[in-house]
This record gives sequence, C-alpha cells and structure tokens, in this order.
Amino acid sequence: MSENTAGDSGMRGDSSPEPDADAAEGTADDRPIVYDLAPDCTLEDAAVDALYHAEVNGVVDYGIFVDVSDALSGLVHESNLDDDYAVGDRLVVRLTEVKENGDVAFDDVAAADYRTETVAHEPTVSRVRGLTPGDEVTVEGEVVQAKQTGGPTIFAVADASGVVSCAAFEEAGVRAYPEVAVGDMVHVSGTIETRENALQLEVDSLKRLPEERATEARERFEAALDERAEPADVEPLVEWEAFEPIHDDLRELARLLRRTVLSGRPIRVRHHADGDGMCAAIPVQLALENFVRDVHEDPDAARHLFKRLPSKAPYYEMEDVTRDLNFALEGRARHGQKLPFLLMLDNGSTEEDVPAYENLAHYDIPIAAVDHHHPDPEAVEPLLDAHVNPYLHDEDYRVTTGMMCVELARLIDPSITEELEHVPAVAGLSDRSKAEAMDDYVALAEEAGYDESDLLDIGEALDYAAHWLRYSEGKTLVNDALNVGCEDEDRHEELVEFLSERAHRDVQRQLDAVDDHVEHERLASGAHLYRIDLDEYAHRFTYPAPGKTTGELHDTRVQETGDPVITIGYGPDFCVLRSDGVRLDIPNMVTELNEELPEAGVSGGGHLVVGSIKFVKGRRSAVIETLVEKMADAEIDEALSSTAAIDD
Amino acid sequence: MSENTAGDSGMRGDSSPEPDADAAEGTADDRPIVYDLAPDCTLEDAAVDALYHAEVNGVVDYGIFVDVSDALSGLVHESNLDDDYAVGDRLVVRLTEVKENGDVAFDDVAAADYRTETVAHEPTVSRVRGLTPGDEVTVEGEVVQAKQTGGPTIFAVADASGVVSCAAFEEAGVRAYPEVAVGDMVHVSGTIETRENALQLEVDSLKRLPEERATEARERFEAALDERAEPADVEPLVEWEAFEPIHDDLRELARLLRRTVLSGRPIRVRHHADGDGMCAAIPVQLALENFVRDVHEDPDAARHLFKRLPSKAPYYEMEDVTRDLNFALEGRARHGQKLPFLLMLDNGSTEEDVPAYENLAHYDIPIAAVDHHHPDPEAVEPLLDAHVNPYLHDEDYRVTTGMMCVELARLIDPSITEELEHVPAVAGLSDRSKAEAMDDYVALAEEAGYDESDLLDIGEALDYAAHWLRYSEGKTLVNDALNVGCEDEDRHEELVEFLSERAHRDVQRQLDAVDDHVEHERLASGAHLYRIDLDEYAHRFTYPAPGKTTGELHDTRVQETGDPVITIGYGPDFCVLRSDGVRLDIPNMVTELNEELPEAGVSGGGHLVVGSIKFVKGRRSAVIETLVEKMADAEIDEALSSTAAIDD
Amino acid sequence: MSENTAGDSGMRGDSSPEPDADAAEGTADDRPIVYDLAPDCTLEDAAVDALYHAEVNGVVDYGIFVDVSDALSGLVHESNLDDDYAVGDRLVVRLTEVKENGDVAFDDVAAADYRTETVAHEPTVSRVRGLTPGDEVTVEGEVVQAKQTGGPTIFAVADASGVVSCAAFEEAGVRAYPEVAVGDMVHVSGTIETRENALQLEVDSLKRLPEERATEARERFEAALDERAEPADVEPLVEWEAFEPIHDDLRELARLLRRTVLSGRPIRVRHHADGDGMCAAIPVQLALENFVRDVHEDPDAARHLFKRLPSKAPYYEMEDVTRDLNFALEGRARHGQKLPFLLMLDNGSTEEDVPAYENLAHYDIPIAAVDHHHPDPEAVEPLLDAHVNPYLHDEDYRVTTGMMCVELARLIDPSITEELEHVPAVAGLSDRSKAEAMDDYVALAEEAGYDESDLLDIGEALDYAAHWLRYSEGKTLVNDALNVGCEDEDRHEELVEFLSERAHRDVQRQLDAVDDHVEHERLASGAHLYRIDLDEYAHRFTYPAPGKTTGELHDTRVQETGDPVITIGYGPDFCVLRSDGVRLDIPNMVTELNEELPEAGVSGGGHLVVGSIKFVKGRRSAVIETLVEKMADAEIDEALSSTAAIDD
Repeated sequence: MSENTAGDSGMRGDSSPEPDADAAEGTADDRPIVYDLAPDCTLEDAAVDALYHAEVNGVVDYGIFVDVSDALSGLVHESNLDDDYAVGDRLVVRLTEVKENGDVAFDDVAAADYRTETVAHEPTVSRVRGLTPGDEVTVEGEVVQAKQTGGPTIFAVADASGVVSCAAFEEAGVRAYPEVAVGDMVHVSGTIETRENALQLEVDSLKRLPEERATEARERFEAALDERAEPADVEPLVEWEAFEPIHDDLRELARLLRRTVLSGRPIRVRHHADGDGMCAAIPVQLALENFVRDVHEDPDAARHLFKRLPSKAPYYEMEDVTRDLNFALEGRARHGQKLPFLLMLDNGSTEEDVPAYENLAHYDIPIAAVDHHHPDPEAVEPLLDAHVNPYLHDEDYRVTTGMMCVELARLIDPSITEELEHVPAVAGLSDRSKAEAMDDYVALAEEAGYDESDLLDIGEALDYAAHWLRYSEGKTLVNDALNVGCEDEDRHEELVEFLSERAHRDVQRQLDAVDDHVEHERLASGAHLYRIDLDEYAHRFTYPAPGKTTGELHDTRVQETGDPVITIGYGPDFCVLRSDGVRLDIPNMVTELNEELPEAGVSGGGHLVVGSIKFVKGRRSAVIETLVEKMADAEIDEALSSTAAIDD
Repeated sequence: MSENTAGDSGMRGDSSPEPDADAAEGTADDRPIVYDLAPDCTLEDAAVDALYHAEVNGVVDYGIFVDVSDALSGLVHESNLDDDYAVGDRLVVRLTEVKENGDVAFDDVAAADYRTETVAHEPTVSRVRGLTPGDEVTVEGEVVQAKQTGGPTIFAVADASGVVSCAAFEEAGVRAYPEVAVGDMVHVSGTIETRENALQLEVDSLKRLPEERATEARERFEAALDERAEPADVEPLVEWEAFEPIHDDLRELARLLRRTVLSGRPIRVRHHADGDGMCAAIPVQLALENFVRDVHEDPDAARHLFKRLPSKAPYYEMEDVTRDLNFALEGRARHGQKLPFLLMLDNGSTEEDVPAYENLAHYDIPIAAVDHHHPDPEAVEPLLDAHVNPYLHDEDYRVTTGMMCVELARLIDPSITEELEHVPAVAGLSDRSKAEAMDDYVALAEEAGYDESDLLDIGEALDYAAHWLRYSEGKTLVNDALNVGCEDEDRHEELVEFLSERAHRDVQRQLDAVDDHVEHERLASGAHLYRIDLDEYAHRFTYPAPGKTTGELHDTRVQETGDPVITIGYGPDFCVLRSDGVRLDIPNMVTELNEELPEAGVSGGGHLVVGSIKFVKGRRSAVIETLVEKMADAEIDEALSSTAAIDD
Repeated sequence: MSENTAGDSGMRGDSSPEPDADAAEGTADDRPIVYDLAPDCTLEDAAVDALYHAEVNGVVDYGIFVDVSDALSGLVHESNLDDDYAVGDRLVVRLTEVKENGDVAFDDVAAADYRTETVAHEPTVSRVRGLTPGDEVTVEGEVVQAKQTGGPTIFAVADASGVVSCAAFEEAGVRAYPEVAVGDMVHVSGTIETRENALQLEVDSLKRLPEERATEARERFEAALDERAEPADVEPLVEWEAFEPIHDDLRELARLLRRTVLSGRPIRVRHHADGDGMCAAIPVQLALENFVRDVHEDPDAARHLFKRLPSKAPYYEMEDVTRDLNFALEGRARHGQKLPFLLMLDNGSTEEDVPAYENLAHYDIPIAAVDHHHPDPEAVEPLLDAHVNPYLHDEDYRVTTGMMCVELARLIDPSITEELEHVPAVAGLSDRSKAEAMDDYVALAEEAGYDESDLLDIGEALDYAAHWLRYSEGKTLVNDALNVGCEDEDRHEELVEFLSERAHRDVQRQLDAVDDHVEHERLASGAHLYRIDLDEYAHRFTYPAPGKTTGELHDTRVQETGDPVITIGYGPDFCVLRSDGVRLDIPNMVTELNEELPEAGVSGGGHLVVGSIKFVKGRRSAVIETLVEKMADAEIDEALSSTAAIDD
C-alpha cells in the first residue's frame, strides 16, 4: 500500500484512493465506489479494503486469479468466491490483504449498485538523494530553476532530500513545458543519466501537480524542508551569558540560510574587506558551500549558487548594489535562477544601507545582516529578513562579527568546528575587541595551537591580503591566511609570517613618512589633538590606506602621551577620526556640521568615538576647524576607546 | 528536372546540363552530347530533352525499361522504339517527359555521331532553415566562420535562409579542409545531428565550388540575401515631414545591418551612456538580437554575434577602439569569426572620432553612425559605411538619436513596435528636445500608458543606472528601466520610481553643496554668468558628474533669472559650458583659445551653445578668463537654448 | 624478451625477473626460483634463462608443447626432455630461446629443490606521443595535474614523449584514486578515446608504482625529459663576443623552460609594458606556446598553461604578485594544476622585486628573470632559479631584453627564427641601445625587409598599443604590430603606420603643451637643467605618460643645447629624471635624500643616469631642490647618456 511503500520520501502520504475518505466526500451519492485501475497501475495505486473491477485470468482448484491491472493480480480464494468464474469473466473484488511476500488477496464482492472511479497510475516517487544512473524514476518537488540552454530546458527540481537537474527536450533552444515555471510543484518522470558526468534526469514527462494536489504536496514539502533546515544543535564555543540572545538570533538565521539553500536560491555575501569581515565571511562560506554540496546533485552547484564579495565601502553603496542587481537579473535571465538571498556581514546595519536595500526590495531579494556596527534598527529592519547585531541585545561592537559568524557557520555545518576554533580570537584581536569572552577565545585558540602573536599576525595578514586583492574574492589566498579550508598548515604559517611582516613594514614606513608632519595641540579639555594631512604627507594609493594610517598613528600617540587623545587624518575631501578617553559623538557632530556649514556637503559618521567624514574640498579647513572646536568641548571619559573598533 | 525540384532554395537554378547551352558553348565540335550519368545520379541531375546513355533492364509488351543511372529509370514506349532490345543492351535515349507521378519517359534515339559527357551526381541542395536531425543533406552557401576547436573544425555556412554550424573532423585540433576559408562558396554534405543540443551538420564532404560555379552561386546567394535584407515596410511612429529624409537613411542602414547579420558578421554597438543613448541602443539591440536568432540555427548566436557597450567618452577614444580591435582580432583568431561591424549610436559623427575610425580602417571593420551631435561629415564620411544625422538634412539635435533608433529598430524587426512606442518620448524628454514631433511622441506614449512624468522619470532612471553601471552593459537592468524586453510591468514601474527618486535626491544634494559657492556676474552683453568650481565645491566621483551638475545648476539659474544665462562648471583641467539665449560658438572659441593660449593645451568643443573644454591644469585661470571675455562679446539670441542638448 | 620489445619507450628497462639478480638478492635462501606466470602474462613478462612452471598441452613426435601462461607457450624438443609427458602433466622448464619468428623454446628442468615466485602481467608501456583512438594501452609517467570535474577525475600524465589526459570515474564529482597525487609516478591502463574531440585515456586502472620501481622509473623519466629539454643547437643571430656568456645563460634558461613545459607546469610571464618588453615577451610566448602544443595531446593546453601579462610598475609590485598568487592557487584548487613557473622579462632584477619574490617563495613557484636593468644580484639571486642580465657579465643595458629574448625563443623553438630577425633591432632602437651589435641587428632586419624607420615605427607602435591596452594582453594586436605570429604582412604595415603616426602626433601635442612651461637654468657644473611640472602643464591620463613625456622633452633639449643636460619632470608626488653627459648616481641620491629628508618618504631609483623617484606630496619642493643641488655637484661625463635606457 502506499503507506507502506512510499517509504521515507514523505512525498506521497495518503494520495492513494481511500474508500472512507472518498465516501465522506460524496454528499449526494453514497453508493460504494469501485475503482477501475488503469493498466499501468501497480500496488502503489491500490489500497486495502477498496473495491476494484477485476478480470479472471486463471481458474485453479483453490480459487481464481484476477487482474485488476496489468501489474496487479491476486487470488480470490474459493472460500471468498460468490460465484463460478471462467477466464475472462469480470467481477468486482475487494483487496483484503497484501502479504509479506507481496502476494495479494481479494474477496469477491457481489456489488450491484455502485459508482466507478478510474484511477490513473501514480508512480512511486523517488527521493532525489540516492538516484543512480539507469534508474527510471519519478520525482516530485518544486521547480527551483528553469534554464533554457541551446538544447534542452534544464529544470532543477528540489524535493526534501536534494535537488536534481532534469533535462527536457522540446526542440533545440525551445522552452520545453512552457506552462511550468519556477516555484511550481511538479511530477517529473524519466531516466537518470550521467551527463557531462553529473547526474541528470532525462525527462519523459513533467507535469504540474493539480492545484489541490500541489497544495498538499507543497505543505508536505515545505514541512520536510523546514525540518531539514533545522540548524545543528551546537553550543557556542565559549560560555558567555551575554551572547545567548545573539546566539538565538544566529540560530534563526542559520535556519533561514539552510532553508534558502534547500529551496535552490543562490546566496550572495557582501562583507567588510577587513580582518573581522574576513573572519566572518570565510567560515560562513565554508559552511554554506558544504551544505550546498550536500543538497545538490550537481557537483558544480556551489560555484553557481554561492558568491562572496568584499565591499568597497563600509556600507552597501549604489555601485555595488547596481552590480549585484544586474548580476542577479542576468542569473535569472540566462540561467533561470531564482534571485539571490543577500547576506551582509560586518556591514549592513546602518541607515546608509537603506537606499541600496530599497533598490533590492523592488525585486524578490531577501536580505539579512550580521553586523556589530551601531545599528539603525528602525531604518533597516523593515527591509531585512533577519538582523543580528549585539546592540539589539544591549551589547556592543566588542562582540565582533567574526565571533558571531563562527557560531553561524557551526549552526549551518557543525562538522567544521575544529577548523574554526581560532577564528573568533583572530576577529576579536583584529578589531581590538575588549569583549568579556576574549580571554576564553584566546585560550581556545591556544589549545588549537595558536598563541596570541600568531592570532594578531593572522589578522594583519588578512587585512594586508584584502587590501591588495582590492575587492576580488581571493578565496584560496585568504583561506590559507586564515587557515580555514586550507590544506597545508606549513603554507598557512609561512604565508601569515610573510604577509604580516610586510604589513608591519609598510605601516612603519607610513608612520615614518607622516611622523614629522603631525601637528599637536592641547585642547581646552586637556585632550591631546593630533592632526595629519594624509594627502600631503602620507604615501598614497598603497598600504596602509588613510583609515588604517590614522588608526596606527593614533595608537602610537596614545602610547606616548596616554589618554585622552584625538587624532584626525585628513585628505582633500575627507577626514578620519580616532579618539580615546573623550566622549565624542561623531554622528551628532555630522548633523551639527551640516547645520552650521550647509555649503560644505558634509556626510559620514561611524561609531560614537571613531568614524570618517566627507565634505567638499573647498570647505575642508572650515569643516576641520569646526570639528576641532566641537572636540575641544567634548567631555573627557577615560572609558571610551576607539581602539576597539578600528574598522573602516 | 532541376528547374522543377530545386524548389525555393534558389541555390541550384540551372546547373544541370542543358543541351542547348552546351551546344552553344562548343565551337569546334557541334556533334550532339550524350550524357553518361554516374550511378548515383538522380532525376535532379537530368534534364528534359537531353540525351543519355541507357541500359535495358526489362522488356515488356508495351516497350522497354531502361536505366540511365541506379536511381533513374523509365520507359521507352514501343511507339518510340527504333529497334528490338534485350535486357542488358545499351542504347541512347532522350528524356522526353517527367510525369506528375514521377514516372519518366524516354525516346530511343538512333544516335551515331555524338560525343559523351559524364555527369557526376549533384545532390539536392537543402535550405538551412528547416533542417532536422537525422537528415542527410547537402547545403550550399558561404563560409562565414571557421573555428578550430580542440576537436573538429566548425564551419558556419550561410545560405539565403540561415546559418548552420558544420563540424568537420580531420584530427583532434587539426584544421579540416585547410583550403576552405571564410568567404568561400561551398557545397557541404553530411548528416544533421544535435550536438550539445543545437543543430549541427556533421560533415562528410566539404568542397569549394569551382570558380565559375562559385561566381554564379554567389550572385544568386547575394541576390537572395539582398532580398532578405530588405527592411520592413513600416511608417514612422508619428507623421513628420522633416523626418522623411532621415527615415530614408535609416531604411538603408536597416538594410545594411540586416545584410550584416545575414552574412554572419558580428555587430558591436558603442553608444553614449546617457538617457538618449540608452533609448537608441536598447531597441536596436532587441531588434538585431531577434533577427540574429531568426537567421542562425545556433541558439547561442545572439550572444556571440552581438555586443552593446556604453562608451566612456562623448567620442570614440583610443582606449575603447584599442579594446574593441583587440577583441575583434581575438574573435577572429580564436573563433574564426569575421571582424565585426561597428555601429556608433548617439556618438560618432564628429572629427574627434576620426583617429579611432582610421585605426579600424586598417582592418575589414565597416562602421556606421547614427548621431545627432553636430557632425563633421567631411571628416567622418570617408570612413563610414553609413551616416545618419539630422544635420545632414537641415535638421538638428532636436531629432534625438533615440527617436531615430526606434525607427531603425522597427525597420529591422517591426514586431517589436508595440514595446517601443514610449521610447522616442523618453529620449526626447531626456535630451529636452523641442522637436516639432515631441507632442505627438508624448501623445503616443500616453496612449501606451505613460504620462509625461513617467517618461521623465524613466529618462532619469536610465541616466542614473548608466552612471552606476559604469560602462558595463547591464542589459536586464536597463531593459527593465526602459520597459523594453522587460517581462514584468510592475517591476519596471517600481524600479523607475526608485531609481528616479534616488537620482533626484542626489541631484538636489549636489545642488545644495554647490549653491553657496556659485559666483555670479553680469556680462557687458547683459547675460548672467554663473561659475562654479566643481573640484572644490561639488561632491566628486558620484552622481551627478560634473557635466550633469553644471546642467542642473544652469537650469535652476535660468528659471531664477530668465535668459540670457551662461554657466561654467570647472574642475582642475576641464570646464563644462551651458548657455541659453546667447549666441556662443564653442567650437570656434576652442580654435581661438588654441591660438591665443597655445601653451594651455586646449581641446574639446561640442555643440554651438553647450560643450566641454579640456586644458592643462596650470593654465586654468587663463583659459577661463579668456573664455569669459569671449562670452561677454557674444550676441544675445533668445532662441538659442542649451537645455535642448544636455548630452555629455 | 623485455629488452627486445619495450622498444623506444625507455620506460620498462629491465623490470622483468632476472634470475641472477634475484638470486643475488636472496641471502638465506639460495634455492633457484621457478616463476609461476599469471594467466595473462606474455612474453614481455618472461626472460631467457629463467625457470617457469609449465603444463603440457600437446605431445608430438619431436617433443612436447607446454603452456607457461595463456599467451606464452612453446616447444620442449625431445632432445631436451628428461621424461615422458602426457597432456596435462606439469613440469618445470627453462626458457632457452626466443626465435626471430616469435617461437619460444624451453628445456625440461629436473628441478627438485626450488622456491616459486608468482609473476603478474606487466603490460607493454606505450609512449604518449602517437596514441590513437581505440587503442587499449598502458602508459607510465608522472601525474602532472589531477583535476576533479563534476564527473570524472582527470589526471594529466606525462611521459618522456608528451602529456595525455586520463579520465578516471569513481562516482560523479568524487575523486578517483585519491591515493594518487600530483608528482606520483604511475601506471595507467585504459582505452584511448576522443572526448570533446581531444584524445583522452579512459582509465581502467591507475596504480602508483611501488617505491623502488617508481624511483627507477623516475630516474629514467627525468633523464629522458632532461634529454628532451635540451635546447636547440643554434647560434646567436649576430656574432658578438660579449654576448657569448649571456647566450650560455640563456641556453640554461631555455633548458629550464623546456623542462618546465615537459613536466606539465604552467608558465606565467610578467613583462615590462614597453617596446623592449614587448619585443622580449612576444617571441618567448610564441616559442613556448609552440612547445606546449608539441608536448601536450590536449590542443587547448597552450591556453591553460601559458599566460603573458604586462606589468603595471617597473618592478613586481604587491598587487600583481597577490593577483598572480591567487590565480595560481585557484589553478591548483580548481584545475589541480601545478603552481606556475614565473618568468620576469625586462623586469625582475632589482631589490624592489624581492618582497614579491619572497611572497612566492612560500609556495612552490620557481622564478627566473631576464632583465637588463641594473641588477641587485645579491638580493634577488637567492630567490631566483635563473637570472640572465648583461651586468652579470660586465655588459650593461645596451644589451636589451628583446635582444636576449629573441635568442631565448630560438633556443626553445628554432623554427621561428625567420619571424624574429627584425625583433632585436626593434628592441634596440626602442630602447635607443648603443650596443656594438646594433649595426648588425639593423642590417639583419634590413635583409628581412625592414628599414630603420620601419623599425623605429614598430617600436613606437608597440609602445602606443601597450599604453592603450593598459596591461591587458592584447595578443593579436601586438603580434600584428611586431609582425611575429602575424598572418598578414599588409595589415602589419598599415597598423604600424597608423599607430606610430598617432604616437608621434600625441607626443608632439604633449610637447606643444609643456614647451612654454619648461624652466631652464644653468648649473654650476655647466649642465643645462630643465624642469617641467607635468601635473600642471602636461595633458594627464593620456599618451605619452609622464616618463615618456620627460624623455621626449629631454631629447629635444639635448638636440637644442647639446650635452650636458638634465631634465626633471615632476608631478604631485613623483619626479622622473633623464640626463646626458652628467655622472649622476640616482640610486645613491635616493639613499642620501632619505637620510637628509627622512620625513619625505623618498623611494625609487632606476639606472645611474635615468630613473624616477617618489615622495610625499607635501615635501615635493624640498625633495626637488635637494635633488637639484646634488645634480649641480655631479661631474660632467659626456659618455653617459640616458637616452639609451628610456625604459620606464
């Protein structure tokens, strides 16, 4: 019976005719139903206790053999016979039993007043996972991609167990089954073959499920996917009470991302191109690519369905979103893909991201952000499908995105835990986090064989590599540098040593160049103010860039003079601010500057005590003088430190 | 007979032996010719009234059956027999009739003094269009591409009906039929197969036609292509007398482009990256891609044979031409393609394009331009295969390139008319055209469901998208924005709303930044002169760029002060000029500047009353002061307006 | 016997059992060995004088026929029989002779006390070169690539004769033979097929050779490759004693590069993007691509295994090395390729290259440099596998890289000599070399049909094309310009005429712009000093760039005023130096500047009398004034000329 044989596919359930159910449906006509099975029906299509039209195909001493279809025959024992029959006689039987050996027994039913329902063959539905070449199969699932090639139309069909490519040929370059669209629930039958050496189902027939059937199937399918989307049951790497609500949010995001993979939708990650951003994005990439490989029969699926891109700006700027959107639309037009899911990492929580999000909102492009920059939840959350940020739980930037994303990656694929144990510490040190869990993270990394100077060097190496990769992915290089998905420990160590040494040398060279040109003054508040004209005195277009140059200079001054210290590095139309021990409120200063100097075109912001500001070239001195006045008024507060968030 | 059976292929004509023709050719020998058909000859190879060697293969009451080849037999009725024959006897017969049912009748000819000519089988030539897998066919046509793959050599062969890929295998990676080159007329025989699911002819034999045969075949072929290249018989969307001569030019260009597609040559479009340029290029792309698909059996042909690229500069600069040329040469070297046809849109009419054209002139790269910038026909026309520009017909920039190219697209493929009805209005409004037909265009767009503000918004959206796409094609995005080749009306509307709002906001932000820094003076002529240092006071490297910023500023000043107004926006080594109500002649001013300030390296120009000028940084103030002096001398002329041509 | 039949493969040698050798190995057990051949053993697996277990399969008058395997039978003549035998009897025989006709003779051996060794079949090893579809073969060689596709694993296996792709299928996307890695010596058996029309060995079995076997095979393999790597025995194009030691170095490098190709390792060329650099790189590319095609059965191998890239900077900067390394790692990760060999041309000899080399040193990436810039051999040679530089042999920059690389290319592939005869003259004139052989080179070019002005024009054309290609390869375009690998002489000539004319025109335009702004003074030493502010007075971001602009200006001034002349072209943060007739030492001046103006961030250098220096913007005037003071102190030396090395 179907209940017995549909097995673990979860796709058929109770779709075979059930006498009771049918009887219940009938309102006017309560005569019994006798099913007339189509010739290709099998036991799958029948149910115990149902009545069937049958034909005698053999008469033996102990009864008669009857056919109810070409493939379904059985015995009516003489004890259950109401009459004498000859071969070819027709009668109505009740299916009474399916024995363990597959034999089927019927009763002869003297049915007089009944109505007949024809039953078409419902083939056995196979699970996608486990298909093997040569099998003739039927698969039931959702069409998640419909790509027209120069030859056949390729439908990617997802069931709860995986996704398989199905090739349907109508005419070269002509859309087969034009009535079937992405998102439809379908039955697809054909033969499994290896095509360019990946499994492919060569389609004999592809049918949209009829509406009620589709609804039911979709419910089962969605339920099964929901179940499969369940994140791993793992605990955070270190115990840390404050992290718990964030971990809950990450769990929900992991579920959403797994669900996204299961539904065949591509994922595009945009992340901040610095140490913490890399520590966030690389583990998530590894976990999601593993899961894509797990779900899709096509071994190239991870390459087509996952893309990681470092972002140029500290927010999601129009140029990036225009490129992403164009890429997404071409993916749909050329490859019949769903539009992608956008995952913003170490980026994406602020109002500056809203215009870009609004652009994507016009399309079916879900967005999630994991960020530790000070968020504007009211602005971004209406546009986000998920938003994880420590500020939402009364924590702050000290919980770095790398720390969060290591947990996110483990919730998606817990098997990679061992590779990731040092990553939160790298992320934290790279962002100079003073999170309470830092000691535990460092201890965990030490157990995994990394001492603190190794971790600092890895962070510098990532930052240096990111700079020179200039927003290309550089997957192998950064994986080697972080030692995640890296095959050769020695190579990792040598690479980090080399890159971090170069980074230190270049930072030193930059500090040497600017050192004599730093202007110092003591503000009324007692704070030291250092200014440097980066356009005039720093090496340009090289490592370290203005933001990092200012940060490194600031750090030397903090060490030399002690708190409170403010450092301003400026170029022709921008300045970078760092402060320690001063209660700045940079976003507020930007607002005030715009009011006081409306002609200066001021924009930007950042954290409270660290940020960058843009303005028009011709009003630079006015902007900077006004800024300095505001800073002179700022209260001293030794607890505040920008060194924890040098992040742009 | 060949005349009857070659059907509509147009490829065979009268290539079968014709006794009269042959007799006429012979001068010394006027004995009759008796043809000896090769065993594989068919009726195709024979002609009524010709003489043939035959052999008796059956004797019946009413005559004898004779074979003239394995496939061509027929009856000699006893009434036409001169003699008694037994099976195996040889005789000479005249083919007298081919009956409707295909039966062939001969006469017995008592030929004594004749000469024999052998006839090889000329297979039936099939049309490319309509080939189906499994067919054994012979195709006659021109080799339009010869690509050596790692395996077979792929020849693309064009006949009058289409283009088919023919795969000939000599040895892996070795050129098959090295004697056959692109441009040759050939006979190619083999089997039609589906290879990677596109139709491909697997070559059994491929022969260059002998010279006289080739000439004749080429003439027929060219004539057939010429016929097929005939543009559609469509009238312009709006009636407009002044447009008629332009429409005639467009018709010729449509013919040339269709002809180019039919001959298998790739087409590369370079266009101005603004609203009008987009409105010009997108419809032409849609029409040409449709036609490529129609002509080529390979469903990927449109991707290989058509490329649209926005141009960085308002003219065709050396960097672009170097890239295009290199791309073209690699297309030939790697894919055996013909060099492309270059189509310049909203660009290409001026002397500044000449150097680039000269570079291409060294290669077989035809060029055409559709432009409404003030042309230098003497300079460019010797290098152009076609040149469409309203100035050539006493019209001017008010006839925008978008208006012209919508008609060009319709002449190439009239089926897309409905999709294009709003496009001329978008183009016109985007370029602020005051063309007499503008009202009709807007009315037409309104009938299609777009009101004027929609059209303006679409123009802004295209401009904004073009800016952020930064010279990548962005096909789907711009198609959606223009609603040409866009599948989803809602998406179009939402996208335009979003992009145009962002564009307006960014323009406002830029105007806010520059507003306080605009310098105003009253020239002796009474004109208002506004100057703005864009490098110092405008946001740089963002939208709107200097040209558009100056234009938008100018418009606000025209509205505030009324005509006459001149606006100069300048950067370190360039300035942008806009004027209303002043009789400027910017090209002339550039010439004078070069004489007066030869050390300033002045170049540039544009329209009479709108343009941009480059110079060396160190002479900026001299250049601008001299310019202002010249402007002060310029006559007031209220009719002149730059707002009609804000186009760079 | 194996000695007779392994033929010229050189792969089997003496791997068959040798009784003596075996006996010698045995220490405790000195009983004779009787081999028990596996049923599939052939004569290949047997050896004369060895003992074998045999079975009688026929009895005749003159002896008995015995089988020692299914395929190896022979006669024991009655004269050599010790006993009577019936069919089916077993005995021990000694193989005594293999006759010319293949008949095998045995003796009956009355062996009583022996030990048995089983012998497995060792198939005949075929050479890669000459494999043909349908062959069932065994190949022995080194795995040089192991690429996991979505389907089979593709192993590229190299023997001494070539490289063949071997497809092993385990399961779609699953690594077959995971125990086999790149670098292993293997036996691979299977059938030769054409797959995507290239030859491919479909693997039946693939085995790592057992260790001792592998060692021996590798020795033979390496020896054979070494032999095949032998460069061609060609003499330099012109006789020139000073060139001989350089030619010896080039010969060794040619051997190394041929060896690299033979071992299946990709080669990546980075070269200076000017005339001499092009003249160096293009011939080497042609020669190496030819050799790759010769070695590899895959016709696409040259595209996958060779890449030429012009370098942005006059040294190997971090951005380039980061990209190269990332590309190399992805080649390994995605395609299972070896990491590449890096060949630096007209670049790579100086200390500035060291950081990049150190980065690559962490990976298995061999590096070689052919350069004529003043080298720092102590710094670079520890990191280079080969270093060819005229300074290493008391020659100097007058021996240009193009001259050297033409010889290098001929040593790799002498068949291209004719195409290259004009290239050294182009290189020399392009770099204004006063090498003693220049006259001979020009004479040689003249014999090949190029007069001196042609050669100068070609150099200019290459320089101009390189500028606009902006570091893309532009293969066809530059090949056409240099007329190396160009199919059409006319196209070459027209292209050169056009490009060189444009180059001259643009140079003239630049000189016109700067001319009035050149400042002149007479130094105390009597030298003329010319200075030009290129940022203020030259056209920017166009051709010619600052270095060439300064050089061209310098040349006009040398012509006008005669020696001694120094020219400084400066921008915001750099200056370019040219001098004639003055004993400058620019590298030393940079060192001194750094000591005297440590805050100026000075770097750079170059040749003694020509170079470029970078500094921070804000210290430009201090740097230039200090430079001028140093120049004023420099001795006059009429022999020194920068015009010979205008090369950055």
